[in-house]
Amino acid sequence: MESDMVKVRIPASSANLGPGFDCIGVALNLYTEISMGFIEEGLLIEVSGDDYKEIETTEDNLVYKAAKKVFEKTETQYEGLKIEIRNGIPIGSGLGSSAAAIIGGMLAANELAGGILTHEEILNLAASMEGHADNVGPALNGGLNITVFDGVSTYYVKKELENDLKFITFTPKKVLKTEIARSILPQKVDFKDAVFNTGRSSLLTAALFSGRYDLLKIASQDMLHQKYRSKLIPEMYACFEKALEAGAYSAFLSGAGPTIMAICSEDKVDTVVEGVGSVYTSMEIDYRVYKLHCENNGAQVSKVSLSV
Amino acid sequence: MESDMVKVRIPASSANLGPGFDCIGVALNLYTEISMGFIEEGLLIEVSGDDYKEIETTEDNLVYKAAKKVFEKTETQYEGLKIEIRNGIPIGSGLGSSAAAIIGGMLAANELAGGILTHEEILNLAASMEGHADNVGPALNGGLNITVFDGVSTYYVKKELENDLKFITFTPKKVLKTEIARSILPQKVDFKDAVFNTGRSSLLTAALFSGRYDLLKIASQDMLHQKYRSKLIPEMYACFEKALEAGAYSAFLSGAGPTIMAICSEDKVDTVVEGVGSVYTSMEIDYRVYKLHCENNGAQVSKVSLSV
Repeated sequence: MESDMVKVRIPASSANLGPGFDCIGVALNLYTEISMGFIEEGLLIEVSGDDYKEIETTEDNLVYKAAKKVFEKTETQYEGLKIEIRNGIPIGSGLGSSAAAIIGGMLAANELAGGILTHEEILNLAASMEGHADNVGPALNGGLNITVFDGVSTYYVKKELENDLKFITFTPKKVLKTEIARSILPQKVDFKDAVFNTGRSSLLTAALFSGRYDLLKIASQDMLHQKYRSKLIPEMYACFEKALEAGAYSAFLSGAGPTIMAICSEDKVDTVVEGVGSVYTSMEIDYRVYKLHCENNGAQVSKVSLSV
Repeated sequence: MESDMVKVRIPASSANLGPGFDCIGVALNLYTEISMGFIEEGLLIEVSGDDYKEIETTEDNLVYKAAKKVFEKTETQYEGLKIEIRNGIPIGSGLGSSAAAIIGGMLAANELAGGILTHEEILNLAASMEGHADNVGPALNGGLNITVFDGVSTYYVKKELENDLKFITFTPKKVLKTEIARSILPQKVDFKDAVFNTGRSSLLTAALFSGRYDLLKIASQDMLHQKYRSKLIPEMYACFEKALEAGAYSAFLSGAGPTIMAICSEDKVDTVVEGVGSVYTSMEIDYRVYKLHCENNGAQVSKVSLSV
């Protein structure tokens, strides 16, 4: 049994944006492409693109694990499965590579299964795998997403952002596993830190919904996770400082890091790239830069002919 | 030395709206009027209206204390001061009576001083007195305000809300001092509760900015203050339940309570009033109800002739 392959293009995403822990995320114009089709037998996973050596090609592959959940839920029978991953999102960097793998795997599998699951069902299944929806939401929906996942359902509001608001990412060439970046967080926090993030995250939402970029500097402040994660990312505070000095609206960890993100207007891109870059250079850390904007479209599914 | 009197009409306000502790507040169409003018000597404070017996008529009066801060800052000299307070906001109930007194006192004094302080300076001075801006912001600006006060400056976004979104308040006839309602809060909270409120408060902001009232039920959930304050307000959870049963979008403590607030559409007002009212009746608690909407205009200053 063979089938046409389906192809899904999934955007990268950045979560938290400073204070919005597990709830604020934005899709970015950097993509991973995942193709999937039924084959006669076995599991064949082909990987290419950025960081392709980091990607499992066994049953531990995240795209496969996500697809399997959809095949189980839709009671889809098949003999063999081929998955092609053309990776464009740095792995373990805080740019939503896992969310892209999950959304891509699920959307492709659902298409092969006949499109049984709804958009909302895919979102909830993906959020269940991640434990939160701040990356899978934007990866699926595009745009800025404010999400709450209560363990069963995902509640969200999507907001499109204009292309001339720039998201500059600085990704050092080291992988930081999200599990490690999470394990460093405390069980208890000061009441005032909880109030701090509640306020900043609400103001950040209001500022992005109303184009008040002048408020982003204050609204991106965080007391819940960055100060703990800075122990794993020693360049963090110096990067924030240089980004703001160079005229960025704000700077923060992308997701759990180690990627540093700066938001700025188009005319500040070069000075921000130079300013933050100087931190990595002086600390002799290899890094790469992406000059991105918000991708207002979510993951796109298309059909292609089987190439085996 | 005598002067014309200035009159200020200040709206009531409701803060927190569930999760938005110290950062989300909305102005309501219920008002206190404060008139102020210079007189030959002394301090003369006349009070009338709701709960007028609760209002100090000495130098401890909050309107006077707020006015004094403005006179000091603007280096305004005067012989005597007359203040008339026509109170329309229940005192110590979680409806912003203190914020109204502060904003009214400051705006009136500033007008008498020649309008030296700017809108932002008044806001920051008022926030310094309260320690946060979630009531003084809406009282001054009108509308829904998302505010952050960092101890010096207030950062906010204002959003006007439509009149057919109804805010129904249930105020039991007991005063709950904000200091007591604050003293019951813990020093430390679970990390997950901090994340919970960060997410709900952000979603609440997004929902109100985009008219997604269907999300208010989830977005109004709170883990930071209501569960502690319920010990002071035993009817709280029963009221929430009845409000939701009656078709309200959401229900929560107004500010530090004891007022319970329900948000609903126009066609649900009667059933919500009846449903929540039945809780107070069965518990033999006297209460009053206001059927309100968002006041999109902030405090209004006008001049009147001196009536002494």
